[in-house]
Amino acid sequence: MSRKIRYGMVGGGRGAFIGAVHRIAAAIDQQIELVCGAFSSDPQKSKDSGADLFLPADRCYGSYEEMIKAEAALPEGERMDFIAIVTPNHVHFPPAKMALEHGFHVLSDKPATFDLKEAQELAKLVEKTGLIYGLTHNYTGYPLVKQAREMVHNGTLGKIRKVVVEYPQGWLATKVEESGQKQAAWRTDPTKSGAAGCVGDIGTHAENLAEYISGLKISELAADLSTFVEGRLLDDDANILLRFDNGAKGVLHCSQISVGEENNLNIRVYGEKGSLEWHQKEPNTMLVKWLDQPMQVYRTANGYLGAAAAAGSRTPPAHPEGYLEGFANIYKNFANTIRARMEGREPTVIENDFPKIEDGVRGMAFIEAVVASSKANAAWTKVG
Amino acid sequence: MSRKIRYGMVGGGRGAFIGAVHRIAAAIDQQIELVCGAFSSDPQKSKDSGADLFLPADRCYGSYEEMIKAEAALPEGERMDFIAIVTPNHVHFPPAKMALEHGFHVLSDKPATFDLKEAQELAKLVEKTGLIYGLTHNYTGYPLVKQAREMVHNGTLGKIRKVVVEYPQGWLATKVEESGQKQAAWRTDPTKSGAAGCVGDIGTHAENLAEYISGLKISELAADLSTFVEGRLLDDDANILLRFDNGAKGVLHCSQISVGEENNLNIRVYGEKGSLEWHQKEPNTMLVKWLDQPMQVYRTANGYLGAAAAAGSRTPPAHPEGYLEGFANIYKNFANTIRARMEGREPTVIENDFPKIEDGVRGMAFIEAVVASSKANAAWTKVG
Amino acid sequence: MSRKIRYGMVGGGRGAFIGAVHRIAAAIDQQIELVCGAFSSDPQKSKDSGADLFLPADRCYGSYEEMIKAEAALPEGERMDFIAIVTPNHVHFPPAKMALEHGFHVLSDKPATFDLKEAQELAKLVEKTGLIYGLTHNYTGYPLVKQAREMVHNGTLGKIRKVVVEYPQGWLATKVEESGQKQAAWRTDPTKSGAAGCVGDIGTHAENLAEYISGLKISELAADLSTFVEGRLLDDDANILLRFDNGAKGVLHCSQISVGEENNLNIRVYGEKGSLEWHQKEPNTMLVKWLDQPMQVYRTANGYLGAAAAAGSRTPPAHPEGYLEGFANIYKNFANTIRARMEGREPTVIENDFPKIEDGVRGMAFIEAVVASSKANAAWTKVG
Amino acid sequence: MSRKIRYGMVGGGRGAFIGAVHRIAAAIDQQIELVCGAFSSDPQKSKDSGADLFLPADRCYGSYEEMIKAEAALPEGERMDFIAIVTPNHVHFPPAKMALEHGFHVLSDKPATFDLKEAQELAKLVEKTGLIYGLTHNYTGYPLVKQAREMVHNGTLGKIRKVVVEYPQGWLATKVEESGQKQAAWRTDPTKSGAAGCVGDIGTHAENLAEYISGLKISELAADLSTFVEGRLLDDDANILLRFDNGAKGVLHCSQISVGEENNLNIRVYGEKGSLEWHQKEPNTMLVKWLDQPMQVYRTANGYLGAAAAAGSRTPPAHPEGYLEGFANIYKNFANTIRARMEGREPTVIENDFPKIEDGVRGMAFIEAVVASSKANAAWTKVG
Repeated sequence: MSRKIRYGMVGGGRGAFIGAVHRIAAAIDQQIELVCGAFSSDPQKSKDSGADLFLPADRCYGSYEEMIKAEAALPEGERMDFIAIVTPNHVHFPPAKMALEHGFHVLSDKPATFDLKEAQELAKLVEKTGLIYGLTHNYTGYPLVKQAREMVHNGTLGKIRKVVVEYPQGWLATKVEESGQKQAAWRTDPTKSGAAGCVGDIGTHAENLAEYISGLKISELAADLSTFVEGRLLDDDANILLRFDNGAKGVLHCSQISVGEENNLNIRVYGEKGSLEWHQKEPNTMLVKWLDQPMQVYRTANGYLGAAAAAGSRTPPAHPEGYLEGFANIYKNFANTIRARMEGREPTVIENDFPKIEDGVRGMAFIEAVVASSKANAAWTKVG
Repeated sequence: MSRKIRYGMVGGGRGAFIGAVHRIAAAIDQQIELVCGAFSSDPQKSKDSGADLFLPADRCYGSYEEMIKAEAALPEGERMDFIAIVTPNHVHFPPAKMALEHGFHVLSDKPATFDLKEAQELAKLVEKTGLIYGLTHNYTGYPLVKQAREMVHNGTLGKIRKVVVEYPQGWLATKVEESGQKQAAWRTDPTKSGAAGCVGDIGTHAENLAEYISGLKISELAADLSTFVEGRLLDDDANILLRFDNGAKGVLHCSQISVGEENNLNIRVYGEKGSLEWHQKEPNTMLVKWLDQPMQVYRTANGYLGAAAAAGSRTPPAHPEGYLEGFANIYKNFANTIRARMEGREPTVIENDFPKIEDGVRGMAFIEAVVASSKANAAWTKVG
Repeated sequence: MSRKIRYGMVGGGRGAFIGAVHRIAAAIDQQIELVCGAFSSDPQKSKDSGADLFLPADRCYGSYEEMIKAEAALPEGERMDFIAIVTPNHVHFPPAKMALEHGFHVLSDKPATFDLKEAQELAKLVEKTGLIYGLTHNYTGYPLVKQAREMVHNGTLGKIRKVVVEYPQGWLATKVEESGQKQAAWRTDPTKSGAAGCVGDIGTHAENLAEYISGLKISELAADLSTFVEGRLLDDDANILLRFDNGAKGVLHCSQISVGEENNLNIRVYGEKGSLEWHQKEPNTMLVKWLDQPMQVYRTANGYLGAAAAAGSRTPPAHPEGYLEGFANIYKNFANTIRARMEGREPTVIENDFPKIEDGVRGMAFIEAVVASSKANAAWTKVG
Repeated sequence: MSRKIRYGMVGGGRGAFIGAVHRIAAAIDQQIELVCGAFSSDPQKSKDSGADLFLPADRCYGSYEEMIKAEAALPEGERMDFIAIVTPNHVHFPPAKMALEHGFHVLSDKPATFDLKEAQELAKLVEKTGLIYGLTHNYTGYPLVKQAREMVHNGTLGKIRKVVVEYPQGWLATKVEESGQKQAAWRTDPTKSGAAGCVGDIGTHAENLAEYISGLKISELAADLSTFVEGRLLDDDANILLRFDNGAKGVLHCSQISVGEENNLNIRVYGEKGSLEWHQKEPNTMLVKWLDQPMQVYRTANGYLGAAAAAGSRTPPAHPEGYLEGFANIYKNFANTIRARMEGREPTVIENDFPKIEDGVRGMAFIEAVVASSKANAAWTKVG
């Protein structure tokens, strides 16, 4: 095949945050091109946003409905191949559904939907249409996260006993949603964010990371949600006990009121023979601990890493890779899976390594279980 | 006064671990001298152990009962001033009780007693005798832990919202208690260790540290205890949700099966205006985080620290101070408080800064609450 | 203007390292597009390499000479705007010269040329043509490096007294150039690399970083070069004393035989009032030290940073930015400066912040001084 | 033998810094006791200082001459066994000489003497008397420094190629010697400190550490000394190129004007097969790097360490050991070597591991070479 994979974007107009991240992630490897967008519900803003991106005006739509219909009417090879959804949570499901129904693959920001019911419906639709659905739980795109997963999978650590995963942030420690901060406004609004605030926004990342690396499922949890900022309608802090399906135990805590924390997604996985520790803040380093030997420091892009980690790197050792490259790995694998289909072949294991609708359903089930547990004073609650 | 404070030791014979630590802690500042000991229940081993320490044979006793009686019969100025108890948990209370009843001050290793009932009885006896009781929750002896407490107390961080405290170790990840490892053997034996294993041994340190720094009390908790090593009789891992008396929330997790972890006591305290982070592994560094300013790195012994931290240092900045110096700060303050009494004056605030029987009672109440909660499937349980 | 800036690439065919980095750096911000290339001196390999990049065959040339001529014959708006040179050192000058002579802007990998004489000739040509020349001393593209420069420039640290800059690597600790490793082969070949090996490859990065941040010039140096791997023809290790034009002193050491070091470019700048420390390995953190206050930890993308650092970030705090983003900042500013010219305006200070031919001349003068000093047994030697 | 080793102290009266450190180092292991002192040249201050230490007034002397004579007149078993010299540099040699002449072993603070000539004379006297002389280059007392030495000695790293050692401090960045700061005053006074300032005070520690770990000797050096604080009479910053006797190269830089640095003694040793990195600020961690394997993190007190490191620890892993414990290891080994002689046996290899007069002579030769080289504009100068 001799062309780039084409996509259209829903959301991500001027001033948005995550839309720009998606576009960079798509652009890095030069295998994907943006061909259209419904960047804003304001048609003029959508056109202006598209013009910033050198898109022709007639491919800048005033709504995702318009875009999907118009693109579906274009010939293959001209029309978009997939849509990227970068809107607030309550606008994840509708465009995903419509795109699938019109034959487009979907790459959506997380969480997959507004609630579990939508996610389950979406899963059915993905299955029915046979189209490719990806979810940007981007932290699983880091090379060393892939290495961690591989080492657990290979039994290098022995049976997993404990997982500690945490995601403290501090940016909502004060009531910034009243200051006109758009990112804060919708995230703290239950009509846009969903049943949970902090847990939906970042707790699901922690949950996804823990399950991705450990290969385990959280079977039940006991959650204590808090809202520390007065008048806020959703949780801004969560402390959760975990039990996994293999008998492992765990702790997940996340917060958006932890003053001075940036994006401290951290995970420790303890097995019978060895342990892993990874910090998103310094994503190119992973600590590997042993019973009777010195701790080892795994670093991105070195020759001793496995195939998944190797495939996730674009530069030699000690050229630090960051958030955007990890994000781009989701795009890359997703697009390569589309490309495989175009080429009439199965995607490789590495190409097929990106979060899917099953992860989306897990995330929504996790949110619902957390909220239910917390309402029941942290009673143990099954997930899914 | 022109003499050192004198003490006798209960336990700590040849091959013991914590006894040697206590003796170093007592020796560092050259204000305290070891004058006698009941180092072992084997009289010959007690004498041999004492000989290693250059003690005369007639001050090396075969039991604490013998020691307390014999020393009590010596004239003041010759007899010991206090006893240091460094035995396994089930032999904390009896010598403490007897020493107090014979007029000796007591410095005991933690936890204070075998169970809460004993601790409460001991508290009454301390109050009744008016003698001085200290407990070696040694981590509160670190200068930067004192700085942390002072900063919280002064309101520098604003109202505290969240505390995350953790104490993972890995040394009991396999069944070392069957290998003749003496430290492991009694710690995993419910008749010697008490109702909890990991929680009693290190969980109480975490609990004490959290309450010491935050100035808060844990009001209730939800605990999930595990025993991962087959056949072990006590918990070797614990995940606990915390609620504090001011409405703050928290997480405490501790473990002795976290492969490759040494003694990773870590604490993060989040307030409305700022946050603190301290790691025992690098005890001379404390991170202080702010809403809108760069994180600061506080370091032991610098001029910008407060009085308590300053008093806890023996060397200039960047001469790393460690575990033994922190431990010695407990001894120093305890001994200075005895000295103050000898001199007929009140101890200063700094001298009086060491863990007391109240901390011991809290610790035992914590253990009992944790065990009760876990038995009730992590139901919320009041502490004390 | 409503189009992307266009470029052609010289070098960077299949299997090359730095060419791919340049293409990613150009692609990230979606403001620059690759329109042609002379990827290899083998015309078929050049076409194949171009096909991987979705370039039409007629824009994939068999030599830079062919490319420059052919592109010059295309109408503006179709032809490339600049060339990116990503060949080994001895092929930097010829295409740069020819491109300038044909009216194309030039972005070149470092060092600028094979020797100082070429660099001086190139500088004259740049001046004469008035075209824009950029050099990818990419480490100056990191946001915190820009912050460091700004803080020094603003006098925040006081007068600079000392600079310690180091760049140890370990990848040439054995004779890998004999194993078919292409990167190693030309870098250790004096006919391709130039008068210096390690010093030309990475020492110039250290030199450039020190001068960029400090705003000072190295006036003289005393260098001790070594070749540790037997039979190698160029230096693989260098230790250099520095004296700066304001009286400051310094040390620069670099190495490619420092086993286990990845790309540890580190710099410390000491002033009368404060100091800075930055490590490329963790590029989103910069330590700022003061006389009597706690050290501060500056982090990329926070609100307290200055304008240059802010402009260099694409994501919020704690979304780690890496090597590729820093590299992309060179491309971004270079391209924006071209765009400014197209728009008939002066570039802003931020747009104009990229390494230029003056930096290239400095680098070559540095190499020559180092080699001369070392031959004279580390005698003090003027730079330039 | 059934008694502690006894010592008298020269210097270290009230308000002194290093004297108190020596006393703690001697006290920690409870094998050494202070029996007398000439703490000050003011007899009353000497008595008062001794009283603080619970010494009888008649063992508190007004001068070292008085002390040595009086103690020599006491019977063995009552008199001191050795003297500890903790005075400024110009008062190291005289008491050392007199003590040796009166049959006392000597433990001296560093540098050994005021100049090289004195050191050579002292070396002859040590040889002639056959008494034991120790020098507190305390950093060699850290367990992981001993481990480093052992690993180099065992060939684990292969042939050593490069050593980078640095010791930046910032406490003399301003003219504190004029503020009444006693430590600063004598260190910047050439009549008390010797020919060098910064180099004598901390450069010798760096030199000693490099030679101790590498097992190599610095054969020649090129030094650039600076005095940044106006009016100061001695160097406060030094940058030095090193050549070792096996052909290895190196860099040593030290500074007392590096604002914000505490006591950052750092060393990196690069061999053909592996490398080591150790930072005094976090002395319980050593990084070990390999050609093709992940970096390892060695930590104090773990079972995988060698005999020398094991013997240097007093606590289990992750009970951080610090400056005082490292210092105490010098005292312990020195005292055990005295004890071996008392017992009529050879000291073990571990007991005999402490800096000796040979190290003292090396240090003074290093200082002289550095000063001579710097005067000759960094000309290469032989050491010793």
